[in-house]
Amino acid sequence: MDSDYGVPRELSEVQKKRALYQPEVPPCLQGTTVRVEYGDAAIAADPAGAHVISQAFPHTYGQPLAHFLRKTAVVADAKIIAEHPAVRVGIVFCGRQSPGGHNVVWGLYEAIKAHNQSSKLIGFLGGSDGLLAQKTLEITDEVLSSYKNQGGYDMLGRTKDQIRTKEQVNGAMASCQALKLDALVIIGGVTSNTDAAQLAETFAEAKCATKVVGVPVTLNGDLKNQFVETTVGFDTICKVNSQLISNVCTDALSAEKYYYFIRLMGRKASHVALECTLQSHPNMVILGEEVAASKLTIFDITKQICDAVQARAEKDKNHGVILIPEGLVESIPELYALLQEIHGLHGRGVSAENISSQLSPWASALFEFLPPFIRKQLLLHPESDDSAQLSQIETEKLLAQLVETEMNRRLKEGTYKGKKFNAICHFFGYQARGALPSKFDCDYAYVLGHVCYHIIAAGLNGYMATVTNLKSPVNKWRCGAAPISSMMTVKRWSRGPSATQIGKPAVHMASVDLKGKAYELLRQSSSSFLLEDIYRNPGPLQFEGPGADSKPISLCVEDQDYMGRIKKLQEYLEKVKSIVKPGCSQDVLKAALSSMASVTETLNIMTSSSTGQTQL
Amino acid sequence: MDSDYGVPRELSEVQKKRALYQPEVPPCLQGTTVRVEYGDAAIAADPAGAHVISQAFPHTYGQPLAHFLRKTAVVADAKIIAEHPAVRVGIVFCGRQSPGGHNVVWGLYEAIKAHNQSSKLIGFLGGSDGLLAQKTLEITDEVLSSYKNQGGYDMLGRTKDQIRTKEQVNGAMASCQALKLDALVIIGGVTSNTDAAQLAETFAEAKCATKVVGVPVTLNGDLKNQFVETTVGFDTICKVNSQLISNVCTDALSAEKYYYFIRLMGRKASHVALECTLQSHPNMVILGEEVAASKLTIFDITKQICDAVQARAEKDKNHGVILIPEGLVESIPELYALLQEIHGLHGRGVSAENISSQLSPWASALFEFLPPFIRKQLLLHPESDDSAQLSQIETEKLLAQLVETEMNRRLKEGTYKGKKFNAICHFFGYQARGALPSKFDCDYAYVLGHVCYHIIAAGLNGYMATVTNLKSPVNKWRCGAAPISSMMTVKRWSRGPSATQIGKPAVHMASVDLKGKAYELLRQSSSSFLLEDIYRNPGPLQFEGPGADSKPISLCVEDQDYMGRIKKLQEYLEKVKSIVKPGCSQDVLKAALSSMASVTETLNIMTSSSTGQTQL
Repeated sequence: MDSDYGVPRELSEVQKKRALYQPEVPPCLQGTTVRVEYGDAAIAADPAGAHVISQAFPHTYGQPLAHFLRKTAVVADAKIIAEHPAVRVGIVFCGRQSPGGHNVVWGLYEAIKAHNQSSKLIGFLGGSDGLLAQKTLEITDEVLSSYKNQGGYDMLGRTKDQIRTKEQVNGAMASCQALKLDALVIIGGVTSNTDAAQLAETFAEAKCATKVVGVPVTLNGDLKNQFVETTVGFDTICKVNSQLISNVCTDALSAEKYYYFIRLMGRKASHVALECTLQSHPNMVILGEEVAASKLTIFDITKQICDAVQARAEKDKNHGVILIPEGLVESIPELYALLQEIHGLHGRGVSAENISSQLSPWASALFEFLPPFIRKQLLLHPESDDSAQLSQIETEKLLAQLVETEMNRRLKEGTYKGKKFNAICHFFGYQARGALPSKFDCDYAYVLGHVCYHIIAAGLNGYMATVTNLKSPVNKWRCGAAPISSMMTVKRWSRGPSATQIGKPAVHMASVDLKGKAYELLRQSSSSFLLEDIYRNPGPLQFEGPGADSKPISLCVEDQDYMGRIKKLQEYLEKVKSIVKPGCSQDVLKAALSSMASVTETLNIMTSSSTGQTQL
Repeated sequence: MDSDYGVPRELSEVQKKRALYQPEVPPCLQGTTVRVEYGDAAIAADPAGAHVISQAFPHTYGQPLAHFLRKTAVVADAKIIAEHPAVRVGIVFCGRQSPGGHNVVWGLYEAIKAHNQSSKLIGFLGGSDGLLAQKTLEITDEVLSSYKNQGGYDMLGRTKDQIRTKEQVNGAMASCQALKLDALVIIGGVTSNTDAAQLAETFAEAKCATKVVGVPVTLNGDLKNQFVETTVGFDTICKVNSQLISNVCTDALSAEKYYYFIRLMGRKASHVALECTLQSHPNMVILGEEVAASKLTIFDITKQICDAVQARAEKDKNHGVILIPEGLVESIPELYALLQEIHGLHGRGVSAENISSQLSPWASALFEFLPPFIRKQLLLHPESDDSAQLSQIETEKLLAQLVETEMNRRLKEGTYKGKKFNAICHFFGYQARGALPSKFDCDYAYVLGHVCYHIIAAGLNGYMATVTNLKSPVNKWRCGAAPISSMMTVKRWSRGPSATQIGKPAVHMASVDLKGKAYELLRQSSSSFLLEDIYRNPGPLQFEGPGADSKPISLCVEDQDYMGRIKKLQEYLEKVKSIVKPGCSQDVLKAALSSMASVTETLNIMTSSSTGQTQL
């Protein structure tokens, strides 16, 4: 083995204590006997795309939802999974590491071994590279011992390479067949789960026996839909970042002379920025979704910040904290168009030095206006998935510089009478990614690992493990599985860097819902955040005492348990059926018909009007 | 009041729990009756400077050490402080905020009120500015309630202005007289405590009744000497930073493709970098003290890092984590000389744009060699204390860029055969400064606050509050006070930016002791740190459970309790005296004379040979 993956780690006191932490599993998964109940066939939330998706996934689209229930649950159609033959399961980390990922492996391992000691869990080393190269490590108690409840992906390593091209897909299939895998579990975000769905479909088509299961693990929190309430890692990332943001707020308040511009992780979606704002109450946050929705230019944003600085100065406040998601640069229309042109030229093999001379006059004018450091960063080669290297583009410095220039102008002009504007910039990116996972992420990931086993035992293919009702305590969590293809949408136009995605079904990043409750909460508080400095310090991530059991605010304010509510609806329908049986009175039938007609019409109207809106 | 200082803060769950935490006080300070024992007159550790210091501080140099003992302590000369008239005490935060500062105020308040309810504690708002402008806030239970055990300095605010010029000193005196202060407590680092000593001397000379007391609070940990084992805030800063460094290490290990260059706080002294290295075991740390001692150039350092990268690549490791103190740039001789020239030109009013053309040919050649971003940063105006704006100089990026260039050269040349070198840079500065203080910092600061009261009650002037034996549990801590002037040294040459300091006694920053045990520990482990990736993650700062009671490693490995050992020596001398009394036998006298002659000679030799070494 040419790497350090999977070697026992020296643990600190805190880590040792964490390694002893045993996450709970909800009642439905306790014991070795679990019932599985199948719901209706799951459809895509995007009705207009459903046809394209069903054609692209003939074997795996339209499969039913699965709910896992406790042995004693009294549900007519729920079957007990009685057979537990020895299985061979592969597991692979795909994409950027997210705190809690190790616990998926642990949870799956525990469930596998609890049902058949002869079963094997095989980890692929170095992510998808290891999958293709068949570099493996058998997961054992010994291997797991220093990785339980620990951060990072260093037990198995990862790459950010995708499994997308024909060669890659065939390579993965060859590995699964060579290793005689009954199932392959892919841990990752939207891209990796899209790949998982594609693998599942290809395997089914090729009659490869390996079932593919996806697990929602990504720190950006942007894999979110009717079946997935949040992803593993998001809670930890937001807690670690909120701690640091709060420290900076306290700093601002102590010195009263700096504006701090803080850039946070989060590509197209600003979930991390939103959650951190709700946790630590900085003065301002600029969400990519707001900028995109209002089509704000870089000058509009600069002006907004300047006006805020001025309003605060009038209240004798010459300090502040402003949050920016790293994806902001792609939400600003003119910067995005510029990036698109640059990527186009990269794609045509134009070298970085020559790009600026080949830009369109319009893009060139903007490019020349930007400070040199940003120009250099915009010219960086795109990432492996064709998107801009957002972590390397210092949008916070660009904004700080533009704001400084404008404030100096206003100061000279006399319209601004506050102190000289001073900015300090931060990027909170990599320093949270390897963090020790919060209790919530430990629990969530561990339970997802268990769910993976039951998906495999039920023989399902192309599913994602789901745990819902997450804002409630673990004993109220519901476990299930949903076909990944039902989470897909089809983009008919694309603001994404890769036009290749147009028309192809994929699990897309979910943006912050500007009609959602979390955003509403932000809007309600934003003016007091801006002017009153009601900074809040959630403190460092705690494993004991108060705060240790807290969950993301944006998770807790949303209505949840979609899966539970889908079940509730089924129960109503069953009840109606059981009341309105042949032989019931005319009146009952009349009442039922009239009520159902009205329900049906309402839903018809709603469903057709939502067609234009493809994203949840 | 035109600022938000001292207003009640909204606290999070964790903060609320912390606000309820009651730090212990050691037995000697429990109850309301404390004995004070005076030791010998304290001398400066720098014998060559002692004369200059005694001349500059005729009223306050050569005062005895003070030890505070419990009421029941059986010590012949210890006096009970019996009188506790109502006192009026002012308190001010000076310099950069450091976690735990609020607890000094709280501890002092508790001690003051416990001894006389009519006494008053008056906080100055906005640091030394508030002291000069007599902007005050009376400290009450209500004011304190949301600041107990909390980070930042936002209860009173701060500036980094000094109290040094004649006007400032006279202004401070006028404020103390106008407010009828019996004492003024100054919370800060080396600069502020030097100012405190100067104020004490000036007040004594002018027969101003206000006594001045200093408290060692600075996050850099560089106020360290025979009386002061560590400063308030250092523990928290190192814990918060070590957490982040460890996260980055885990990240490096998960992705195995990046080198992380992390710049940490720490100006001329690299205490933070050393402690964080001992806590989290990154691959490499470059201490300013090592660079200065070995006179390494920027090219030497680059080469060292490149060789390390190459050695790691030969072991198939293409990732790593390297720590750099922000003060490194001033430790590198040629960069420091360049900075000196730039500051000189600034001082002569040359504008930033024109400086490069007026540099000496040698400095100019170096300047032109450096990447543009660093040139711009080096040209920034010096800070108020005439030092470079180190937090704004991205040394980590400079090194990363130089290393990248060299590794690319080696790659082309074929001498390096690893993967392409990729660096990611971080500055961990402001994000730790406002952190919730660790339990140790809460306790230490609170006890120091108590000690301040007893210094005032004993009528001492120009003293610093000290707590020693800190690596032991609180009930073993020893409390005392030492004249600040005895901590001073006189620089006969200066590498500091302000030549004005030459010949003037001052409390200088203590460098990392390259002969000390903490550095020895680093040296013992450095090659395994470099090659074996034995990263250690202390986890986020905990307030309960394991790790909550940990203290800085560099504090715990050093021999300590200087004050205790001074006392022990006195006891031996007393014992000799009591045995060898007139009337004792010839033999006893002979033995005593011979032994004492030998001791005296040994010490004489050691004292004279240590003259060349002025810094501890």
